[in-house]
Amino acid sequence: MSKAKQALEKLGKELAAKILAKQVPVIDIPIRALSNVQYNKKTETLELGNKKSERNFFHVAHAKKFLQTLEVAAVSKELLEEGKHASLRDMFYMVKRTIPNTKINIVDDQIESDSALEDLEVVTNFSREQLNINANKMGSVAGHVIVEDKGDEINWAKMGSGGWSIPSNVEEIIFKKVNAKYVIYMEKAAVWERLHEDKFWEKNNCIIMSSQGQATRGIRRLLQRLSNEHHLPIYVLADFDPWGFYIYSVLKYGSINLAHMSESMTLASARFLGIVAEDIENYGLKKHLITIKDVDVKRIKQLQEYEWFKNHKGWQNQFKKMLAFKAKAEIQALSSRGISFISEKYLPEKIKKGEYLD
Amino acid sequence: MSKAKQALEKLGKELAAKILAKQVPVIDIPIRALSNVQYNKKTETLELGNKKSERNFFHVAHAKKFLQTLEVAAVSKELLEEGKHASLRDMFYMVKRTIPNTKINIVDDQIESDSALEDLEVVTNFSREQLNINANKMGSVAGHVIVEDKGDEINWAKMGSGGWSIPSNVEEIIFKKVNAKYVIYMEKAAVWERLHEDKFWEKNNCIIMSSQGQATRGIRRLLQRLSNEHHLPIYVLADFDPWGFYIYSVLKYGSINLAHMSESMTLASARFLGIVAEDIENYGLKKHLITIKDVDVKRIKQLQEYEWFKNHKGWQNQFKKMLAFKAKAEIQALSSRGISFISEKYLPEKIKKGEYLD
Repeated sequence: MSKAKQALEKLGKELAAKILAKQVPVIDIPIRALSNVQYNKKTETLELGNKKSERNFFHVAHAKKFLQTLEVAAVSKELLEEGKHASLRDMFYMVKRTIPNTKINIVDDQIESDSALEDLEVVTNFSREQLNINANKMGSVAGHVIVEDKGDEINWAKMGSGGWSIPSNVEEIIFKKVNAKYVIYMEKAAVWERLHEDKFWEKNNCIIMSSQGQATRGIRRLLQRLSNEHHLPIYVLADFDPWGFYIYSVLKYGSINLAHMSESMTLASARFLGIVAEDIENYGLKKHLITIKDVDVKRIKQLQEYEWFKNHKGWQNQFKKMLAFKAKAEIQALSSRGISFISEKYLPEKIKKGEYLD
Repeated sequence: MSKAKQALEKLGKELAAKILAKQVPVIDIPIRALSNVQYNKKTETLELGNKKSERNFFHVAHAKKFLQTLEVAAVSKELLEEGKHASLRDMFYMVKRTIPNTKINIVDDQIESDSALEDLEVVTNFSREQLNINANKMGSVAGHVIVEDKGDEINWAKMGSGGWSIPSNVEEIIFKKVNAKYVIYMEKAAVWERLHEDKFWEKNNCIIMSSQGQATRGIRRLLQRLSNEHHLPIYVLADFDPWGFYIYSVLKYGSINLAHMSESMTLASARFLGIVAEDIENYGLKKHLITIKDVDVKRIKQLQEYEWFKNHKGWQNQFKKMLAFKAKAEIQALSSRGISFISEKYLPEKIKKGEYLD
């Protein structure tokens, strides 16, 4: 029996025992709110604190949430038994049923089932992927890596121009061969296609990975497994803008939403590879600066206050320069220097010189 | 030399000849606007009409656009010569240079280079993919198909849980083996993962393909190639909502934006597989209806007036019922009947009975 299923059964048995002993059924749930999130300087991640709240079935304000949490647990147990996976949306429809003899639905909105599932994650200490609920799927990967997944052997070096499509759930993938010195994760699929066409991963013996925008949970776990199990440094290639910086920040340090998952989601080994303020001078990108808006300025000021950036000279320097330039710049601005400038000059040079922020 | 490159050289030589003969350099460009778009009942696609406009280098209102078109053509020729591909964003940065001895940039905004590229498509009759400019990449595919791409042989049946990641440009893919009776294209990556986990394509001998939302150009071309070259019917699995219907409409009949590309983009063989109004009764989805908003109502009324839907009883019936229900429904509502209800009952039953709209 899987450990996740064991945890669900344990939860159920404990509640049943309380009911049989005529005690009030109660679940202790760690509080998932800013008030209970703290930055752990040692592990360099956002973590959940020790504050817990009681969810009491006989408390009128708790009863519905109590029921939702158990219903989500029941569906998850069913999925684990059948060896099937559901999306968050599926989960919503699967728990959305009417309580007999009433007109009340267990959930009316996906926010409720999502929230119940997050509660279940903190209660059981298993991620929703381990509870067989998948996040959205997106992204591609290429490199000298062979994995086994669902009985298929997949060679990331032999995937044509498309690459392997990264699944939403990478927990059961087995690494058969990993021949790479590092991983580059980029926020833009178009940049991935550029590096792939230039055979960057082949020439530089690395792995290239991308989604479109923020990294999915599948990608974050895949990066983490490559970092932990194969000790590969992870380079993050993003724009010189608050959003690019934020993508890096979430990858490396975690986010408030997922503070309870930090252990399996954060990437202490992540390094920011670009674009940085100095590149704009060094690589002649001045004329491709894009004026920032008020919302960007506000975002930079928030980033400046993040605990992990607050005393970080390198990052404070980037924020200051962006505010001074009053401008941001995109990775693709490098194309103005030639379509393969990024793969032939920019990246090899920066990696060789160790010009990254971490 | 590639035919696309020949077309670009022809354009350049004609203009050079005019200049050498002391004539005014002029390009004739078919007008890409609603006034010049018509629905061809025979081919069942939106097409560009015959109206053209002259772009004159010596006309003060034309000079800049003229220059932009030629600059984009020059970059495209370079890409074709080097055998490399650029994204739309790359193209923007590559043509964004200052005209010597002035302070004027050839382009200041990506809208300008995108528009110049569309002009180049209609002038040369080559798609931007054939001109080595790629759209965004997204989506996955699985099935009993073997393709050759960039020297790699890729078996879509052996891709683990991820599937093959569909490239933005599928023009050069070679089909080595296609063993399938039909293709299902779905708008949601999560539904794709559901069907993939249930081995739907294996059990039903078909191909499953998805993006997230609107189909990318890479996917549309891949579907069209499977339809034209391998005579496979294409089933579109989308929500019972105006957006789902619109996705189908664009796939099958084309769109105003891409009217000049209809020949290589539309899918006369496309069939809408669901969700439809009748399913809501037949498959017990009533309690999962979602109330529509004013914007949905407006959208339905627009769809009702589309030339290809106007006299189509089946579609008019769907629009009327959605307005009567005042509600829409999602594919994933089927999960309320069981996580694999969609792959074990809904789809096989509907395909067997021929219950699709076309």
